[in-house]
Amino acid sequence: MKIEILCTGDEILTGKTTNTNYSFIAQRLTENSLDVVHGTSVGDDAHSLEQAFQQAAGRADAVIVNGGLGPTVDDLSQEIAAQAAGVELECYEEWLEKLKGYYKSRGRKMPTNNTKQAMLPAGSELLDNPIGTACGFAIDIQGARFFFTPGVPREMKRMVTEQVLPRLLSMSGIKTVSRLKRFHTFGIGESRADQLLAGIIPPENQDSIKLGFQTHYPQLETKLAVQADNDTQIDAMLEPVVTELRARFGNAILCEDDQTIESVILNELQHAGGTLSCMEMATGGAIANRIMTSLQEDKQLLNRCVVSPTINQLCRAVNITTDATPRNAELATILAETFAASSCSTHALVVLTDEVKTQDSTDLIVSIGIYGPKGSTQRTAILPGRTGWTRLGATELAMDCLRRYVTGLRVDEKIDFEKAQS
Amino acid sequence: MKIEILCTGDEILTGKTTNTNYSFIAQRLTENSLDVVHGTSVGDDAHSLEQAFQQAAGRADAVIVNGGLGPTVDDLSQEIAAQAAGVELECYEEWLEKLKGYYKSRGRKMPTNNTKQAMLPAGSELLDNPIGTACGFAIDIQGARFFFTPGVPREMKRMVTEQVLPRLLSMSGIKTVSRLKRFHTFGIGESRADQLLAGIIPPENQDSIKLGFQTHYPQLETKLAVQADNDTQIDAMLEPVVTELRARFGNAILCEDDQTIESVILNELQHAGGTLSCMEMATGGAIANRIMTSLQEDKQLLNRCVVSPTINQLCRAVNITTDATPRNAELATILAETFAASSCSTHALVVLTDEVKTQDSTDLIVSIGIYGPKGSTQRTAILPGRTGWTRLGATELAMDCLRRYVTGLRVDEKIDFEKAQS
Repeated sequence: MKIEILCTGDEILTGKTTNTNYSFIAQRLTENSLDVVHGTSVGDDAHSLEQAFQQAAGRADAVIVNGGLGPTVDDLSQEIAAQAAGVELECYEEWLEKLKGYYKSRGRKMPTNNTKQAMLPAGSELLDNPIGTACGFAIDIQGARFFFTPGVPREMKRMVTEQVLPRLLSMSGIKTVSRLKRFHTFGIGESRADQLLAGIIPPENQDSIKLGFQTHYPQLETKLAVQADNDTQIDAMLEPVVTELRARFGNAILCEDDQTIESVILNELQHAGGTLSCMEMATGGAIANRIMTSLQEDKQLLNRCVVSPTINQLCRAVNITTDATPRNAELATILAETFAASSCSTHALVVLTDEVKTQDSTDLIVSIGIYGPKGSTQRTAILPGRTGWTRLGATELAMDCLRRYVTGLRVDEKIDFEKAQS
Repeated sequence: MKIEILCTGDEILTGKTTNTNYSFIAQRLTENSLDVVHGTSVGDDAHSLEQAFQQAAGRADAVIVNGGLGPTVDDLSQEIAAQAAGVELECYEEWLEKLKGYYKSRGRKMPTNNTKQAMLPAGSELLDNPIGTACGFAIDIQGARFFFTPGVPREMKRMVTEQVLPRLLSMSGIKTVSRLKRFHTFGIGESRADQLLAGIIPPENQDSIKLGFQTHYPQLETKLAVQADNDTQIDAMLEPVVTELRARFGNAILCEDDQTIESVILNELQHAGGTLSCMEMATGGAIANRIMTSLQEDKQLLNRCVVSPTINQLCRAVNITTDATPRNAELATILAETFAASSCSTHALVVLTDEVKTQDSTDLIVSIGIYGPKGSTQRTAILPGRTGWTRLGATELAMDCLRRYVTGLRVDEKIDFEKAQS
């Protein structure tokens, strides 16, 4: 079954807004083994829309239209859909009542132009929008099934997931239960991950389990998209693959599904009744920022972060004189121990960095020191590449060392992004 | 003249990669008064590509194709372009020599499959790519002019700007000199900016100067896109509008064109022989991170940043006891003065924050204290909204207060995003 995604709106067409709605819809479909064959963007004018609807109907079996369901005169999706389908617009009382109730519950009277949002092409199937005023709808246009969805991202996401996807899966004859299992790793590049997982899906399940990767450098996301008749079948197929995948990726797995490396670290600290302080150089506050924005009701888990481009200032912050500084990794460890004491923290993470220009790139020498109840540990790595790139790598490496420390794993395993040291 | 942007590649089609290339091309064209009427995404298969080329030729006068110029078998743009144009592929010796030279200068032999990148449809006009191995080309297909560009963003950007845009402008008969003047503001929402600038472009120049806005919250970018026969005409038209715009936006203008608020602050510090230290709460290292990543060879300008979710830890970092703390804005000023001294900095910025839940949102109370050679100053604001949103606002507000302090402007002007205080 061929599917087209048709995005409408001048802001998308002129590039003012980056089309992340398209990416979301295409990804969700692809993860569910549905076949996206064409993407189209057109502006808010009647002629372009009608032409695009007709061409899409000629190319695809199903078309997801995004945008154009608002209350203003610019929003033409219902009207053009009715024209293209050769039917009239009619008022869907069910949605009109819902709209009135929506405004009433907010103590406001519904503006008249919102009535337009309850006018759908006759014969449409209504697609519920529990979190907005624009209802979706589905209708046949020239032999293709069209699904109209709102442009507001959170409304679109919910409608695509809950309303459109099940209908597409049922149309396509695809087994209707699906699940997405995700692994987040650090230290393994995409091509090596691909090699490491060679043959992991048994031949008999290759139609049911799709393996995919998405790089969000420095992290890599590995996805298993599974389709089956029911959840029991999914469990049975997925379990051995997941076990094997965990074994092959080993300690490089930071977390799974909706977890983050930050949440893993903070959970461990919370369970151990611990607190954390950090010192950063080239990572420039990125660790502080990531941990701070992950704190929920547990703000006391993070005590203090000190950030500076110079070692001197970091040393001064804990009253260490820098006249006779040892090598960086040792200094990082000394700083971690001293800083833990002076900030009254059980754990401290220190990341020192040095940029060294080489013939073809700039190397970032990263020295990490960790102090905690299990004693001190240290790690050094050389990250080659562009400055912004190596900063990201250094931030992730430092957070990963801390994750390994608090979860009791080795901190000295090499990563793909570092240079061999002589 | 109608223009279509046609993006190719499975990664784009399936949503794995967000299509930022499309946004860039569409924006550049729109800024130059060129009319983008259609956007298309198709995968790396011959049938889809050929169909897309034909449909685009039927709809548009010019088509920009992005992607598919690489050396691998997936990259089909040249081959399908030749088919659609009804010509053969031929070797462009000029580009082949360039490719060989490119590899030679890197001490490597050119892999055989790169030869493919010098094979273009007969009769193509070559579009130079000074920073990559994929050359672009232009050719007529069924009455429309097609421009083929590489998928690598920095190569595409340069080729579109230097090669494609001038050709499109010349085809369209648009006066060929253009300029984009940009203003970055903080504190003015897009709709108020629109009101403030009402009537700013004289009626006789409305075809030559286009005003546009782009929100990158919390900053707003205001653009003047100007077209004329020559630079002298542009200067003459632009000058009075720029003067008037600066007067209407006033101190809300952070900087212009490629400048950033960070570079403005760092330049002022450098000229004054100053150094900076910062303390942050809910902004959680974002200020440290933004300033650190803007430092070039002037790393000594930033001394030290301290980040903590609690006031206690910030006070301890400068040995202030918190038994009898004054109100936050005063405390912020005391901390700034003390921290400047203890970190040996001429300037210190302190941002304290308090979250207060209200009936319909969470308010972030932001207290800013600045200390420097001109003495102390303070500012308090209440930012309503979602947590991530108000954090961004607080970060920008603090940086803006510091910009105003170092450039000698008032720091107490209200912004559109803050709540009136009782």
